[in-house]
Amino acid sequence: MSVLYKSDLARGQAWAGYFATHAPELEFRIWPDAGDLAAVEYLVTWAPAPELLRQLPNLKVIFSTGAGVDHIDFSAVPSAVPVVRMVEPGIINGMVEYVSWAVLGIHRTMRAYAGQQAEGQWRELAVEPASARCVGVMGLGVLGSAVLDRLGRFGYRLVGWSRTRRELPGVQSFAGAAELPAFLQRCDLLVCLLPLTSETRGILNAGLLAQLPRGAALIHVGRGAELDHEALLAALASGQLSEAILDVTEPEPLPPGHPFWLHPRITVTPHIASVTQPLTAAAVLLDNLRRHRRGEPLRDLIDRGRGY
Amino acid sequence: MSVLYKSDLARGQAWAGYFATHAPELEFRIWPDAGDLAAVEYLVTWAPAPELLRQLPNLKVIFSTGAGVDHIDFSAVPSAVPVVRMVEPGIINGMVEYVSWAVLGIHRTMRAYAGQQAEGQWRELAVEPASARCVGVMGLGVLGSAVLDRLGRFGYRLVGWSRTRRELPGVQSFAGAAELPAFLQRCDLLVCLLPLTSETRGILNAGLLAQLPRGAALIHVGRGAELDHEALLAALASGQLSEAILDVTEPEPLPPGHPFWLHPRITVTPHIASVTQPLTAAAVLLDNLRRHRRGEPLRDLIDRGRGY
Repeated sequence: MSVLYKSDLARGQAWAGYFATHAPELEFRIWPDAGDLAAVEYLVTWAPAPELLRQLPNLKVIFSTGAGVDHIDFSAVPSAVPVVRMVEPGIINGMVEYVSWAVLGIHRTMRAYAGQQAEGQWRELAVEPASARCVGVMGLGVLGSAVLDRLGRFGYRLVGWSRTRRELPGVQSFAGAAELPAFLQRCDLLVCLLPLTSETRGILNAGLLAQLPRGAALIHVGRGAELDHEALLAALASGQLSEAILDVTEPEPLPPGHPFWLHPRITVTPHIASVTQPLTAAAVLLDNLRRHRRGEPLRDLIDRGRGY
Repeated sequence: MSVLYKSDLARGQAWAGYFATHAPELEFRIWPDAGDLAAVEYLVTWAPAPELLRQLPNLKVIFSTGAGVDHIDFSAVPSAVPVVRMVEPGIINGMVEYVSWAVLGIHRTMRAYAGQQAEGQWRELAVEPASARCVGVMGLGVLGSAVLDRLGRFGYRLVGWSRTRRELPGVQSFAGAAELPAFLQRCDLLVCLLPLTSETRGILNAGLLAQLPRGAALIHVGRGAELDHEALLAALASGQLSEAILDVTEPEPLPPGHPFWLHPRITVTPHIASVTQPLTAAAVLLDNLRRHRRGEPLRDLIDRGRGY
């Protein structure tokens, strides 16, 4: 029996060290040093390559190293092999940090102050208390819930939207397409944390952005393909949106010359909001792997039908 | 008996409205419509003008509209007249928001990402978990305590320094000049929230900055005169400091052509971290004023000997 790791080498070495210390009974191998392929029962990877899957006759579980799994071609994964995504404290903390930074900076008009600094202007701008600003989060899973909980400590009004209803303390929640307009009209700041599915592809389009209050801001930390780039540029040009902070784009990297790079009201970061932290992730992986070996249910299992 | 307000007019009108609704029995007057000066028992102002004080024979209390009182000339204030500073939820929330934004942005290398965006570069930079970064706060009063409490929720390691020892949950605390070096050597991010006194004037000097870990960052939200500008520039030039976010300078506004305006590693904001919110402040003022009229001790009284 072996665990085969095929992804970023530095992280693989860190995980190999963690397994050697905490689970010396498990054989942890880093690709391409895969050993006997028939012995591989667990594959740890970002996106499993179909040609590799065909060489692993005894594969029992695929552990993705990311929180999202839209990059995985499920048609190439045998139906008997469950796929698990990575939900670990490092990913959650990273997302909470990034979105908190983005919300606070927008609320406190830090983009305008940076512009004033560049022009040598010392001028106080109006600020409303957090309790007068409403932050809406689309996607109420582990990450969305953690983000809302932290923002609540700052006193923002909170609304949430998800495909199926989710009740969260202190959050006015909305569900499904029917309630999307009522959700959007409340959002001074909209945070998109939706997984990419056939239903969410292109969801951040002109029609959706038009339903936000005039001058609203967008923080996009879901998946790039959820955002219609032209619609965003038009909404910023018309003043419908005041600014946008984007951690994801389609494609990634954003190509040279793309209008987002130098747009005065767009901040782009290279998909770094949430990053798997090697050591906490190794602990989560090992715990889940041991659950499987004991015959217990796996945590953070993907529902293939739903796509997340 | 009357309450005389002499400060920003828009806020005065908001407060007059609040008093008219919640304390119709009190006469609230806005300068220059002062009415009978001998009737003025309470003066609400930023800095009391000595010539005004001489015209108020029955003054009982001065309420400053700010959290800091270093701008007040106490030699012109009769010793029998107590001075109260403004500590209200809006000031505390504003400071917590600003410092959280600054700490998160530094931790997540947002200045470097902005530079990369300007150059069209998509490159992930290394990030440590919050638990590997230590934030130190100088000044452990109401604001410093609130800031530390919020930062603790993000998982940062926390240290605090104050003139006299203050124990705060989850914070390793240091006190006095003797323990300042031990405090400084732990601070990856240093937040200055000290009141301006003869002891703190110029405290952020070359000698202090040199005791921080190499590459540390400074967030200055105390008072401008606490920072030696030349020492900051030298520390940034040598790499001893990686960046600085300054909400206060000496003088304010920062003069045209000052090297801070266009420095690539300095963010300057125009003393806006913490702003009195008119409505919550009016409630705090009225509550304190009524305490005095009932003969109860005033809250947030200034100790003239200490200077804050």
